Amino acid sequence: MIEVEIKVSLKDEDSKKILEKLKSSGFEKEETKEQIDTYFNGIDRDFQVTDEALRIRKSLNLDSNKGTIYVTYKGKKLDAISKTREEIEVEILDMALMYNIFEKLGFKPVHPIRKIRKIYKKEDIEVSFDTVDCVGDYLEIEKVVDDDSKREQALLELLDLLKSLNISSDKLEKRSYLELWRGNCGK
Amino acid sequence: MIEVEIKVSLKDEDSKKILEKLKSSGFEKEETKEQIDTYFNGIDRDFQVTDEALRIRKSLNLDSNKGTIYVTYKGKKLDAISKTREEIEVEILDMALMYNIFEKLGFKPVHPIRKIRKIYKKEDIEVSFDTVDCVGDYLEIEKVVDDDSKREQALLELLDLLKSLNISSDKLEKRSYLELWRGNCGK
Repeated sequence: MIEVEIKVSLKDEDSKKILEKLKSSGFEKEETKEQIDTYFNGIDRDFQVTDEALRIRKSLNLDSNKGTIYVTYKGKKLDAISKTREEIEVEILDMALMYNIFEKLGFKPVHPIRKIRKIYKKEDIEVSFDTVDCVGDYLEIEKVVDDDSKREQALLELLDLLKSLNISSDKLEKRSYLELWRGNCGK
Repeated sequence: MIEVEIKVSLKDEDSKKILEKLKSSGFEKEETKEQIDTYFNGIDRDFQVTDEALRIRKSLNLDSNKGTIYVTYKGKKLDAISKTREEIEVEILDMALMYNIFEKLGFKPVHPIRKIRKIYKKEDIEVSFDTVDCVGDYLEIEKVVDDDSKREQALLELLDLLKSLNISSDKLEKRSYLELWRGNCGK
């Protein structure tokens, strides 16, 4: 699967207005989640250099109190402006056991990133209002496609939506929350 | 967890007599499973050399037709005669996705090993009659302990059981099914 994704900081934006516009164009609230992401660096390569990611995500639906855990691999970004990348994700039943296995294999865990994510959906487009510990408030717009040939069309669709929210595409943020955390909050 | 385990070939043994003795000493049939184990070699080290293992096990209960999938890491063997090793195991929901993630991370899959395993249990001791494709018929006796201090006592217990089944401890097989497969059936 390819996750076509764009992201902007909400620091200088009016989140309330953005939400109103989303709702008036048919987006509906899906859920609010707390997500704690533990990233690992590679064994034979530095994922900061290869632009890959290995992550265990512990996700808690704050409405239903239901938790899920996923292991995710992300490949390098596929274009120059967005955060589009190959993504493989598998659900697992226990966080600590998987963490231990990755450590035994030689992966090095890095600082976990915690955020509160409010998710709105319209058809196959997902818009998230993220409040990331220390890093700040961001808007993520995402669509998953199953084939590389659909990637560009999907990206254009997301950029159109961004424009309709009166957010300039100059503001696109390519860095991951982990990179932003490293820049702002840690090493 | 530490998996204390011994294994013997059933080639020159009378399986029926062994089973009768197990039953008369209180072992009961638990289940029959088909297990397909896909092993991966390490990224920065050869698991044949370091005596570790990374495995995805697809297990199908042939009585209930219920399937489960596990990722397992095994550390090196902890003594000279048995197959005792540290083991960490986590249940996952999809085999193909996990396989893809391991491949993307750089692990190299090796030939899958398929067996039919009939499991008998008495308290915390598990005895399995294994019929392994190409490799042959084996008996595995296993007990899981949570602490290294309990390892030797558990091993003595398993060796006592082996003796009571009239199987000589000279016959203990330390090689894994993967190693036996490599020796007998492949490279």
